[in-house]
Amino acid sequence: MLDLDKFKLDERLEKDTFFVKDLKLSRLLIMNDSRYPWLILVPRVFFNKEPITELFELEDEQLLELQREVKIYSEFLKQEFQATKINVASLGNVVKQLHIHIVARYENDETWPAPVWGKGKASYYNDAELAEFSQKLQKN
Amino acid sequence: MLDLDKFKLDERLEKDTFFVKDLKLSRLLIMNDSRYPWLILVPRVFFNKEPITELFELEDEQLLELQREVKIYSEFLKQEFQATKINVASLGNVVKQLHIHIVARYENDETWPAPVWGKGKASYYNDAELAEFSQKLQKN
Repeated sequence: MLDLDKFKLDERLEKDTFFVKDLKLSRLLIMNDSRYPWLILVPRVFFNKEPITELFELEDEQLLELQREVKIYSEFLKQEFQATKINVASLGNVVKQLHIHIVARYENDETWPAPVWGKGKASYYNDAELAEFSQKLQKN
Repeated sequence: MLDLDKFKLDERLEKDTFFVKDLKLSRLLIMNDSRYPWLILVPRVFFNKEPITELFELEDEQLLELQREVKIYSEFLKQEFQATKINVASLGNVVKQLHIHIVARYENDETWPAPVWGKGKASYYNDAELAEFSQKLQKN
């Protein structure tokens, strides 16, 4: 059930990210870590008042919509930030609420070629950087 | 272009995995690491004689088919191995050929809750274990 009224973002995600906008299915967030252009999509889907946790719990149409949204923002990161590679992942071992990471990677980034999770310390955005990133996303 | 004749598996994937079967879109592989039930899907899609590298390079129908395949094998791992969480990821920082990891995770597995990549040493399957895992997959 896609229930916009009941949607509540996980507290850890709330703390680690900035709100950009609500898409048709997902909430679009910027991860507060300027080491990598890093977006998170959170499908606003609850079941029995709990957020779903696995991709396969999405109904077919929701999954299709999620893929559209992942595609739009993967291409955006690739082009806007001239990324070497886009990493897309649904992990959720720590934060249970289903969320999809879309991370722009570079051969000279801090953790390349390893995945970004749990490596080093996040570098927070300042207001100007955040406003610039967010503005670019508003157009997409 | 989905070109079955031209398909060639990346050498690193060839070395690290076992062939299970070709699905409609992807080649299904078992990662040779018995610490986690771990499958890999490799869409058999080439463009200009090179394997594609990003999810967003798939045509809409191919992406839809990939999602079907990801869903089938995620649910399979969840149910068959009573996984706590399924991790799904397309990274490709090392192996360029597009491939999707589907990994069954447990709260008591070796690297929980961190992602599995680049942690510790793979534990290889013996023939009996591999045959058993592969047989279960043949039915799905």
